[in-house]
Amino acid sequence: MAQTEREAIAMLEHLLPKAPRGETWLGDDAAVLGGPGGSTLLLATDAVVDGVHFDLRWSSLADVGWKALTANVSDIAAMGGEPIASVVAVAGASAADLELLYEGLVDAAATYGCPVVGGDLSAATELVVSVAVLGTVRGVSPVLRSGALGGDTLFVTGALGRSAAGLRLLSGDQVPDDECVGAHRRPVARLEQGSCAARAGARAMIDVSDGLAIDLDRLACASGVGIDLADVPVAPGATLEEALTGGEDYELAFAAADPERVAAHFAAEGLACPLAIGTCTADPSTRRLRGERLQVAGYEHRLD
Amino acid sequence: MAQTEREAIAMLEHLLPKAPRGETWLGDDAAVLGGPGGSTLLLATDAVVDGVHFDLRWSSLADVGWKALTANVSDIAAMGGEPIASVVAVAGASAADLELLYEGLVDAAATYGCPVVGGDLSAATELVVSVAVLGTVRGVSPVLRSGALGGDTLFVTGALGRSAAGLRLLSGDQVPDDECVGAHRRPVARLEQGSCAARAGARAMIDVSDGLAIDLDRLACASGVGIDLADVPVAPGATLEEALTGGEDYELAFAAADPERVAAHFAAEGLACPLAIGTCTADPSTRRLRGERLQVAGYEHRLD
Repeated sequence: MAQTEREAIAMLEHLLPKAPRGETWLGDDAAVLGGPGGSTLLLATDAVVDGVHFDLRWSSLADVGWKALTANVSDIAAMGGEPIASVVAVAGASAADLELLYEGLVDAAATYGCPVVGGDLSAATELVVSVAVLGTVRGVSPVLRSGALGGDTLFVTGALGRSAAGLRLLSGDQVPDDECVGAHRRPVARLEQGSCAARAGARAMIDVSDGLAIDLDRLACASGVGIDLADVPVAPGATLEEALTGGEDYELAFAAADPERVAAHFAAEGLACPLAIGTCTADPSTRRLRGERLQVAGYEHRLD
Repeated sequence: MAQTEREAIAMLEHLLPKAPRGETWLGDDAAVLGGPGGSTLLLATDAVVDGVHFDLRWSSLADVGWKALTANVSDIAAMGGEPIASVVAVAGASAADLELLYEGLVDAAATYGCPVVGGDLSAATELVVSVAVLGTVRGVSPVLRSGALGGDTLFVTGALGRSAAGLRLLSGDQVPDDECVGAHRRPVARLEQGSCAARAGARAMIDVSDGLAIDLDRLACASGVGIDLADVPVAPGATLEEALTGGEDYELAFAAADPERVAAHFAAEGLACPLAIGTCTADPSTRRLRGERLQVAGYEHRLD
């Protein structure tokens, strides 16, 4: 019996038809579709469930709404795309809950330029917020997970582990640190960084939603390369373990051949330079951190 | 405290920004969006929840998957559009459940030309299947709920009440009738009829998902017209009550000025002629069925 999302998707694959040439369906941050008039469209969905993805002791309903939209917009960012609009299906919210949830959704929608244009409401015994987001790419090709080559430099757009550290502080006895708690409650999708990376020649990209180690493993498996990390940028207040496996940072990790071109593009757009953390190796079995074996662990979506 | 979906949406409206000119966000079957290159895109979402929208005593998981996609594709049909692709977020399904659910989803996807291109899986204590569908319109403008004028003829694309009758038969002691049970388990979205109606000059359209009376009331409210029904086509095996308020038939109801043009278009495309059931009145307060007051009742989505 499959127990993780990844195992279940592998099991379902035989049921699902293959994408036509030029499109990408399952297996990336967002699906890539041919739209009207030769356009390229992106479509993704992510749901959050009470007690699985959030804990209302540590996050408000407005935070949950913010984060649900952020997780979806981050999938568009990880393709180098920009969002057009979103729809939200909410099950199990009272009318009062809904108003709070929508406060966060609408805040995030305004921040990302991704309006909530439709929705569905229904009764349920627990709160489930399912968001779907539509996007497009402008002037670049969508950046898949599968394009990295041996020798590429690996980058991340920021230090990691803040969200996990925030959750640890919230659920512990210590006085919570504002920045980590803020990052846990209101993470920010890296839209500008994603489209800049695409223009700067990123060949493969993924968002760090489940933890750097597991997300880089996905990129490496899709590309058929290995991973050799020289360093992992740990956010102040976080541990190396949280940076590697905590997830929910929503920074972007990408592979590019030319580090100088990356630096030049980010500088030209007034964005902080992404951090070079290692290289892709030609040997697809390599998983290394500072010469040691990199443990591939992180947030695995369990179905049971 | 708001208790129905409609009341909750009214309450949320002050939070949500207004759609720009030429777009339609909330309040129709699907949102109408400007896409890349001057294209028109449609986006909708509908979720189904175990015990609220389906009962696994009467429908299989494959039926649930079929119906979840059908409800979404029907929203595209009701705009005169065609689907491009869908994404599906499933919460609370075991791996074995998922395979059955996806059998129905993939069947429906093939039937409607609307592939499932992405998804999300998570744990939950009850089964929630949230689908979002992307579509477009070709050669016509999207048909909103709001364009009907006094004097327009009202049509439906088929007889009503079959799904409700099927459910009644399944949950009672009688031997279930195959056709009604089939319509309950595997309703069909009327894509060809929707785009034909758009070409035939339909000025307002809605899908009959919650019951003819309540769905026509929504069309009438959006258009600022009244409803005067001469007749309601009741499917064999169904009652008038089921036809008026049962819902889940997924036939389309639309208003058009020229019945002959409607008949000619449907005949030319080899489709059964829609049934003329009455007229839109200039007085927006009119709700009449064969000269009597039409009770506006149907499936109201309750949040509690």
